[in-house]
Amino acid sequence: MPSDPVSTLVDRYAGLRDQRVWSLLVSVFGDLAQSEGSEIDGPVLSAILGAMKVKPEAARVALHRLRKDGWIQSRRTGRIRRHSLSPRARRDSLAASRRIYAPPEAMPTNWQVIVLEDEALPTGFVRIADRVYLGADTLKPPETALLLGGAQVPTWLRSALTIEPLKQQYQALNRVLAETQNTIECADLDPLDRAVLRCLIVHNWRRLVLKHVDLPRDLYSDDWLEHDCRARVTDLLARIERPDLSEITAA
Amino acid sequence: MPSDPVSTLVDRYAGLRDQRVWSLLVSVFGDLAQSEGSEIDGPVLSAILGAMKVKPEAARVALHRLRKDGWIQSRRTGRIRRHSLSPRARRDSLAASRRIYAPPEAMPTNWQVIVLEDEALPTGFVRIADRVYLGADTLKPPETALLLGGAQVPTWLRSALTIEPLKQQYQALNRVLAETQNTIECADLDPLDRAVLRCLIVHNWRRLVLKHVDLPRDLYSDDWLEHDCRARVTDLLARIERPDLSEITAA
Repeated sequence: MPSDPVSTLVDRYAGLRDQRVWSLLVSVFGDLAQSEGSEIDGPVLSAILGAMKVKPEAARVALHRLRKDGWIQSRRTGRIRRHSLSPRARRDSLAASRRIYAPPEAMPTNWQVIVLEDEALPTGFVRIADRVYLGADTLKPPETALLLGGAQVPTWLRSALTIEPLKQQYQALNRVLAETQNTIECADLDPLDRAVLRCLIVHNWRRLVLKHVDLPRDLYSDDWLEHDCRARVTDLLARIERPDLSEITAA
Repeated sequence: MPSDPVSTLVDRYAGLRDQRVWSLLVSVFGDLAQSEGSEIDGPVLSAILGAMKVKPEAARVALHRLRKDGWIQSRRTGRIRRHSLSPRARRDSLAASRRIYAPPEAMPTNWQVIVLEDEALPTGFVRIADRVYLGADTLKPPETALLLGGAQVPTWLRSALTIEPLKQQYQALNRVLAETQNTIECADLDPLDRAVLRCLIVHNWRRLVLKHVDLPRDLYSDDWLEHDCRARVTDLLARIERPDLSEITAA
């Protein structure tokens, strides 16, 4: 069982939004067992999910679903089962990691606007008018695009880019991340605590950040806290060292 | 009667397109009698229109129409009538002159693209997508616009900006302007010839150039000859001196 302060944080993260267990599992494997050959033993996975207050039956159902979908593969060695990402899941997980784990300084600071001859949303861009897309200046636009740049962004556009429900979710996440930063200042985290906290941080962060493209801070309203959250996530993941899975078995 | 080479040019300009006499009269007053207090005597106007091969009855009808519309005002002094622009017509004519008579070097060489929050074509801009407008960089955009700039213009946009019927009319005008340049090299032009030629040049040029906004050359297809025409018009109007109207009375 995790120590009390971590248990409190588990509740705070669970309170952010209805957590789907299969999606939580994707985050657990993505953070703790993404590298080739990395596996999570059944008992370790049970310990982590248990500390996250996920019911054993819900964990079983979610694992079954991910196996059926070809995301997780399992094998039995002796008395225990070992679970790992499928090759496709590893590829997808790795691709998402670039955006999830990127530190603030790796984020774009400039933007471009492109006008296309016909409607076709290019990857990484967001539509701001028919056939007109906005994106980070680091993106490669389609060859036939009219390429445009600018300096100032008018208020109406910042408002349009600031998606209201996401804005509120970032604000809520920002509060829990701040609380996590305060908590771990004085807490003594064992490997299981570290696994649980890392996975909850990554999980709740990725659910928001992967819902939209990466854009510079200046394009949003002042109360859009994505960039504040990224700074906290980067700080937290640096301070909460990723545990060796064997340490959790031992515990 | 004009000398033979001018008569040939009169036919060539008349061949460019169905010429409305009232519109031709607007050009005549705009070029020869735009300044405050400037009038054209009835016999002088008749001589000019006659040299343009406009039938007297058509001239009378057109003059009547322009008077009824409040564009021309006429007064009788002694045995002759004197015609002049109304104050409103003078204002409108002066405003159009800035665009008609501007030399090539006064034309914009750079452009801007603006994205507006809602649909409302701003003056001087051309719409390239919903809520997206292109214009010379010398234009003042609406305050809330997203201001954008760029360097290269893709082929599809140049094609879209190159209005096909206007393109062909510029090509036809360009041929007649070139012929005019050749003709006046060796012709001896009397004041009436100069009045006729100037008015026909201005008339046929303004009918095209006032149909669209001023944009840099680079935004059009290579076969868009507006800018070539402007260079020829500027050259011709500099070489064909504006006649003193009293010289025509005398002739």
